[in-house]
Amino acid sequence: MTETVLTPEQAQARADAAANAMWSRDAVAQALGMERIAVTPGCATIRMRVRADMVNGHRICHGGLIFTLADTAFAYACNSYNLNTVASACHIDFLAPGREGELLEAVAVERSASGRSGVYDVTVSVGGKAIALFRGKSARIKGEVSSFADA
Amino acid sequence: MTETVLTPEQAQARADAAANAMWSRDAVAQALGMERIAVTPGCATIRMRVRADMVNGHRICHGGLIFTLADTAFAYACNSYNLNTVASACHIDFLAPGREGELLEAVAVERSASGRSGVYDVTVSVGGKAIALFRGKSARIKGEVSSFADA
Amino acid sequence: MTETVLTPEQAQARADAAANAMWSRDAVAQALGMERIAVTPGCATIRMRVRADMVNGHRICHGGLIFTLADTAFAYACNSYNLNTVASACHIDFLAPGREGELLEAVAVERSASGRSGVYDVTVSVGGKAIALFRGKSARIKGEVSSFADA
Amino acid sequence: MTETVLTPEQAQARADAAANAMWSRDAVAQALGMERIAVTPGCATIRMRVRADMVNGHRICHGGLIFTLADTAFAYACNSYNLNTVASACHIDFLAPGREGELLEAVAVERSASGRSGVYDVTVSVGGKAIALFRGKSARIKGEVSSFADA
Repeated sequence: MTETVLTPEQAQARADAAANAMWSRDAVAQALGMERIAVTPGCATIRMRVRADMVNGHRICHGGLIFTLADTAFAYACNSYNLNTVASACHIDFLAPGREGELLEAVAVERSASGRSGVYDVTVSVGGKAIALFRGKSARIKGEVSSFADA
Repeated sequence: MTETVLTPEQAQARADAAANAMWSRDAVAQALGMERIAVTPGCATIRMRVRADMVNGHRICHGGLIFTLADTAFAYACNSYNLNTVASACHIDFLAPGREGELLEAVAVERSASGRSGVYDVTVSVGGKAIALFRGKSARIKGEVSSFADA
Repeated sequence: MTETVLTPEQAQARADAAANAMWSRDAVAQALGMERIAVTPGCATIRMRVRADMVNGHRICHGGLIFTLADTAFAYACNSYNLNTVASACHIDFLAPGREGELLEAVAVERSASGRSGVYDVTVSVGGKAIALFRGKSARIKGEVSSFADA
Repeated sequence: MTETVLTPEQAQARADAAANAMWSRDAVAQALGMERIAVTPGCATIRMRVRADMVNGHRICHGGLIFTLADTAFAYACNSYNLNTVASACHIDFLAPGREGELLEAVAVERSASGRSGVYDVTVSVGGKAIALFRGKSARIKGEVSSFADA
């Protein structure tokens, strides 16, 4: 996805720089109490605990917030090359509910990246059991995520 | 979608009862400042203004919140028959960004309903221009949304 | 989707030229006995009768062929501006089976077109009843569909 | 996905019986020259060579046929428990074209199965390189695929 050949350490430093820049301005992730567990080139793991204000009357997490968690992991994964990248389309299958107090973990992995577009799979799970499967299509736009310099 | 033949007024009263019951326990819709414009049998219109805490560093609304708005319209539409119904899968295409201060409107319409499943299309627009297209698949589960009595 | 301002007649002539060029080399549509009913700028209607060799043991049309019909209508619609355009992603919801002998009609309409990408909705129906809902995302690539000259 | 506890050998025998029954009536797979490589509980691998009558004017395989290949692998995977199961929705991302003469391989794996519904991922590749990613949602209906007896 990038022309420059980087060492693994440089690629990780670039992923860290991009993630740090995104996080500092990601008001939604912070308001939802998300925790950034890991961002590596093409991958990201984000966690979110289901709070009382995230559930409906059945104490089931709002599907929009499960999507938002998955979408966040997707965003950190597809921007890990430090090139501005946005979601062009997303699909989510809801398998089981997330309940108040549970810790949701979203793991995003790159399935394809060619030219300016990519496909990422995100699995949202609770205690190792998948509760939602998300697939996102990314589109690279102009600009860099951070002012991180390769050299 | 229901065996009982209702007058249009009864069907609307039932949709209102379901929507009122959902709204009273919809902490997420309220926290995001959503406004319930209309819920009729099989359809719903919901609005949300993009606040400063909903945007990223580019003042672009977080895609997860656009999804949450669309998903909310979908939920009110597919529960308008007062039968508990959940999302089984959703697809969203992002067409253009939503910007801070803009008023987003999500209009959900029923495309199909047979047996326990349905398909709903939701268009999210700003000033009449579509910024996202959402399609949701619903699955009816047990129970009623409200204690509304048909008779 | 095009910078040149055409009269409606010119736009239709361009859509016809593109459709004719596509049809002449569309071995699959012809092998499946598809019929091109109408192609207008951004829209297309294609029909296909379910033959004995298109069904499985239950005399139900193979879902892949319903998809192929929808995808064909999508292709004629998104190439109607005579700019080479391919499918980047498609989603289909199957609502009801298509049965041997039935005439399936796929109607594609443009929902969005901006820059090089578009979104098209295709409804596949039998006798006016929808049996599948398809949504396709298009990506414009280089070149023209036919050697049709605007002037 | 089944209550009966089977030995691995019994589960495989059941998958074989279901696959054999499906294959004998799968006119489309046979007409397209598909080859059944492997069907195991929850998984299936199917191959198809791109023939001259499967391509358009650019010698690119029709997307509908790539979908049909993926959908076929999906069908064999989700019917491998010998319980009649149909596709309720499918999503496909096209990554790269399939060209005349190439051998396409579709590998379907089960991602989720609970109650009567499941989610399957299918990767279509050429020489180990993915050209399409497919995700299908299955719904179990009445009846068994074959008259295979568990005991």
